[in-house]
Amino acid sequence: MTQVREISTASGKYPVVIGSGLLRSVPRWLRHLQFSPKARLLGIVADQSVAERYAAEVEEALQEEGYQSVLMTFPSGEDSKSLRQLEGLATQASQAGLDRTSLLLTLGGGVAGDLGGFLAAVYMRGLPFVQLPTTLLAHDASVGGKVGVDHPLAKNLLGAFWPPKAVLYDVATLRTLSDEEWRNGLGELVKHGLLGDSALFEEIVSTAHALGPKFWRQVSQEQWTVWLARGIEVKARIVEQDERETGMRRLLNAGHTVGHAVEWASSYRLRHGEAVSIGLVAESRIALRLGMTSADFVYLLEASLAACGLPVTIPSDLTVERLMQAISRDKKKQGSALAMALPVAVGEVRIVEQIPIEVVQEVLTYG
Amino acid sequence: MTQVREISTASGKYPVVIGSGLLRSVPRWLRHLQFSPKARLLGIVADQSVAERYAAEVEEALQEEGYQSVLMTFPSGEDSKSLRQLEGLATQASQAGLDRTSLLLTLGGGVAGDLGGFLAAVYMRGLPFVQLPTTLLAHDASVGGKVGVDHPLAKNLLGAFWPPKAVLYDVATLRTLSDEEWRNGLGELVKHGLLGDSALFEEIVSTAHALGPKFWRQVSQEQWTVWLARGIEVKARIVEQDERETGMRRLLNAGHTVGHAVEWASSYRLRHGEAVSIGLVAESRIALRLGMTSADFVYLLEASLAACGLPVTIPSDLTVERLMQAISRDKKKQGSALAMALPVAVGEVRIVEQIPIEVVQEVLTYG
Repeated sequence: MTQVREISTASGKYPVVIGSGLLRSVPRWLRHLQFSPKARLLGIVADQSVAERYAAEVEEALQEEGYQSVLMTFPSGEDSKSLRQLEGLATQASQAGLDRTSLLLTLGGGVAGDLGGFLAAVYMRGLPFVQLPTTLLAHDASVGGKVGVDHPLAKNLLGAFWPPKAVLYDVATLRTLSDEEWRNGLGELVKHGLLGDSALFEEIVSTAHALGPKFWRQVSQEQWTVWLARGIEVKARIVEQDERETGMRRLLNAGHTVGHAVEWASSYRLRHGEAVSIGLVAESRIALRLGMTSADFVYLLEASLAACGLPVTIPSDLTVERLMQAISRDKKKQGSALAMALPVAVGEVRIVEQIPIEVVQEVLTYG
Repeated sequence: MTQVREISTASGKYPVVIGSGLLRSVPRWLRHLQFSPKARLLGIVADQSVAERYAAEVEEALQEEGYQSVLMTFPSGEDSKSLRQLEGLATQASQAGLDRTSLLLTLGGGVAGDLGGFLAAVYMRGLPFVQLPTTLLAHDASVGGKVGVDHPLAKNLLGAFWPPKAVLYDVATLRTLSDEEWRNGLGELVKHGLLGDSALFEEIVSTAHALGPKFWRQVSQEQWTVWLARGIEVKARIVEQDERETGMRRLLNAGHTVGHAVEWASSYRLRHGEAVSIGLVAESRIALRLGMTSADFVYLLEASLAACGLPVTIPSDLTVERLMQAISRDKKKQGSALAMALPVAVGEVRIVEQIPIEVVQEVLTYG
């Protein structure tokens, strides 16, 4: 079973294909999608551990169809989302002879997509690329066209809108994820349910209740294909209407204002999706203080996320001062008030423009 | 007298304004063009020597209209077109608090436009920018939307198509150019005449004949305004039809295949426009060998460029081996033959697809 969703935004149009075993048939899928590479030489961008695990499979599939490939790697880990690694990949690309007719494949999780996609955006002023996600979290980045690297002063400070030509999402790769990586992706997936597909939210939560801890390992590839497709559907509907984050796209920031602060304050010990989960609960409490939701909803949200194995409380070693410091320099700040996307019900997130900074501080202090 | 040319390409639409004294009225021009910055804080990107000379003028003009500005500088010279300087400018931008509502002004020559424009393209995934050229060569970069940096392995390896929102070209700044900088820009301007405005070519050449060496210092600002506008017109007509260099835009590469090789082989001792002048003559000789033009034209072209004070022969210390090495890895190579844009008459450049590499070698060896 394979699901296909066509993404269509101002900066491009491309299909996201989700199914099991796609890596073995990359060139056939590209042909099927009528996007066969012009040049016979393709570049594959992957971190070293993903390269060891999956690159051979992709390279063999390419060879069988008469393509050559060059594998360009970078060290595993978030630190690799840097200009330095971008330069290193450009060196490898140039030495291998990739030119403006070449196609890049980004193989891996968020870092491979962001860093490799940014290489595609700027190498010789722009190459086409195809994303081959291997993590659950990557479903988020596979829609929206954002690529880029971090800067010592801020995450994602340098980047571009550069959508892939296709996303081939092989759910068979999910098997090898660590529990941490599962949680990392689950935080965003549940958020997508929460803000745009209440049935998806409820299905995941009831499955978690039924199967218990690490339910993700007991869920079939078919089920993951469906859930991923639905999470992608939520994001796609929003991004298609508002690619540049001026309006509706801000809904996707639910959980992210507090989440980013938690992520940063923990020095990234907490993973992105885990931090988003904590952020969603904290932000629903802000909505409660503003009289926009009920205590029942806050309790339900907290219990649901916890059932999914996600963290829901701010670790006690993170001080409110440090969290407020991160929040205050957040991109979404407007003067002395904050704009945030607050969860107020299952299936409803609301953009609130002028949240007094004291309300946020109170919630972070007293819960 | 002010000339305005509206540039209109797939990736954007913007006016190029040419005249004397524009730097003193940047914000008024932006208002006049109905492009007033959203944020009150603007970033100005300039190399250190241009900043010393002109930044105060621009900053005062901004202040008078109620704007604040932050001056972000980089060391003068071609070496600054690097990812390292991009990161340094991003640091300055982030520390100054520039965000996605900010406007950047790039003040200076090609490096400021390319590096500062690339910063604009990727900082927070893209800011608008306005180009304030201060060199003659910058007329070339002011049309076409190309921005980027060099990589140790290749020039302009990393970049984007990111057109400015406006170009305000203050010809009063040309007074302070060195003779080398005049030649650098003149090579491209004469090339634009040669390939698309024979009257411009003839006017410049006859003025050079009449006024003698360094005629550029005796030509009025009004005259430069007109000539620049006409050079820009030639490039604009071509780029508007073919932004991504798949067809007609290749005409602009006249003189550049040999020119780039000369530039590189001389370790950039020869400036870009000087190398293009040498390249135009060599490439007209290639056309002659291919029976596509007359010896008369080659002689006329050589004499005309020399009259303009431009170099026309390959310096004797550059070996044919080294030049061929550079040409062979040129982006325009196709197998063992080369595609080039060859000058065949005043007002006519022809794209030739399959030039045997031996013909090029012969011309570089024997002239």
